[in-house]
Amino acid sequence: MVQEMQIIDGQQTAARIRQEIAEEIRYMLAQGKRAPHLAAILVGTNGSSETYVRAKVRDCKEVGFESTLVRFPENVSEEDLLAKVKEINDNPHIDGLIVQLPLPEHISERKVTETINPRKDVDGFHPENVGKMVLNLPSFISATPFGILLLLENYGIETAGKHCVVVGRSNIVGRPLSVLLSRNSYPGNCTVTVCHSRTKNISEFTKEADILVAALGKPEFITGDMVKQGAVVIDVGLSRVSTDKNEKGYMLKGDVKFDEVAEKCSYITPVPGGVSPMTRVALLKNTLLSNQNSIIS
Amino acid sequence: MVQEMQIIDGQQTAARIRQEIAEEIRYMLAQGKRAPHLAAILVGTNGSSETYVRAKVRDCKEVGFESTLVRFPENVSEEDLLAKVKEINDNPHIDGLIVQLPLPEHISERKVTETINPRKDVDGFHPENVGKMVLNLPSFISATPFGILLLLENYGIETAGKHCVVVGRSNIVGRPLSVLLSRNSYPGNCTVTVCHSRTKNISEFTKEADILVAALGKPEFITGDMVKQGAVVIDVGLSRVSTDKNEKGYMLKGDVKFDEVAEKCSYITPVPGGVSPMTRVALLKNTLLSNQNSIIS
Repeated sequence: MVQEMQIIDGQQTAARIRQEIAEEIRYMLAQGKRAPHLAAILVGTNGSSETYVRAKVRDCKEVGFESTLVRFPENVSEEDLLAKVKEINDNPHIDGLIVQLPLPEHISERKVTETINPRKDVDGFHPENVGKMVLNLPSFISATPFGILLLLENYGIETAGKHCVVVGRSNIVGRPLSVLLSRNSYPGNCTVTVCHSRTKNISEFTKEADILVAALGKPEFITGDMVKQGAVVIDVGLSRVSTDKNEKGYMLKGDVKFDEVAEKCSYITPVPGGVSPMTRVALLKNTLLSNQNSIIS
Repeated sequence: MVQEMQIIDGQQTAARIRQEIAEEIRYMLAQGKRAPHLAAILVGTNGSSETYVRAKVRDCKEVGFESTLVRFPENVSEEDLLAKVKEINDNPHIDGLIVQLPLPEHISERKVTETINPRKDVDGFHPENVGKMVLNLPSFISATPFGILLLLENYGIETAGKHCVVVGRSNIVGRPLSVLLSRNSYPGNCTVTVCHSRTKNISEFTKEADILVAALGKPEFITGDMVKQGAVVIDVGLSRVSTDKNEKGYMLKGDVKFDEVAEKCSYITPVPGGVSPMTRVALLKNTLLSNQNSIIS
């Protein structure tokens, strides 16, 4: 019997999780507790950064979180930015702090990231959170890998003993996901292979994957012949590709050639509507966990 | 042409590195600088722990480092132990601090590890060092993985684009090594697969390895039929196996069935005399790096 292909609906899953969070917040407020509070710092007026931060603030509102958006001009000094980070670190009414990247060249992203109190680091980028994740200790897991874990969990996808091939070794997706999926937990306990730009004969690896994660940022890189029949395919890519087929002039494409690959899969995430809505909801989850002191270790 | 098998001599490589370090120390002392200083804390009288710590202190003496051995009785309180850690953290004349594990049940190893100043954490166990390693930032790399990198480097073994299979996902060997060998550096840039106790058909993975790292702690687990012709095999195992063939009553065995596997390899580490001498010299390297403030990031 051939299993039918199932689309992993990130939009719907994220909506359900947002609803659960909203209920939790109503319950907390009724108990007289204060709502979780996310602070976001935005430097300059980069178009995509604006869009992302606005979406995060809107998400907060929707589930009943407080949010604070701090804006700085492009030419803010590193010193002033770090002072604001420290002020928010010390503010007991704020649970989570994110600084939207990229930052202007004259500011060290590393210094900013490492100045954020790890207990408020809901992006999970601080080395202490990364290290604790690797050591399987309680930690904030960054939003995209966390969102993918939530998808696997919500669809009840079996992971133990499966061969998972992660294409891409970025600090924010490929690397953490490869660690998370090989940890002794659920989702996890996969045999994990990490492929990257220096991998030779990459299709020999992808063809062996029970679970294939494409996170390299090259539109439609993964073609049908690179995927095993029955595989679970998670597409993390989200690239703008020019088109004259619509008014916007671009389409969003994943790293997977969907039409070819989908027919071979047991499960696949579409683009858009797969991983990216889960990334947004994962940030809310982290902020709630911070508010509840659930990541203290 | 079949390449001849070469034994990777860890004893000899470690001796050469110790000599280089000793020369460096003589040079530093002649410049009027102070020698690197390693402090080790030993709790109780566990036989193996005694042996390890004594060896580390002896190594220090041999290369011209200062060393301090702090001993506590088995029933020392966690509070007193942590107070000593903090005292050493604050002592500007000490560059590196290790607390020999395991600790008695009533003391939290995690709390102790996380109390050590990351800048003096020459064992590389602090989450901040683990996180920075993952993020490819300057950090202390724990001794066994660091020793293995030094071996690969000293033997000029090509790693970029090779398929490396790591058997074992422990926090101190398998996990960090799998990350290090897939980072964008040398040694590194391998396509890395991590296998562990939940991996199915493990020999199907090991047979594909250009570089095979056995770090699971099961004597002679890797047999000849599990290894590809021409592979590089790194054996991290070091188990005592009973025997009536000698007076001690035991033999040291690696995770690799040496006689069967060696004849298929291009390079192989013996046990003993392969990885373990490198582990010891890697700790000295870290202590020197700390003294020279080379890990500041």
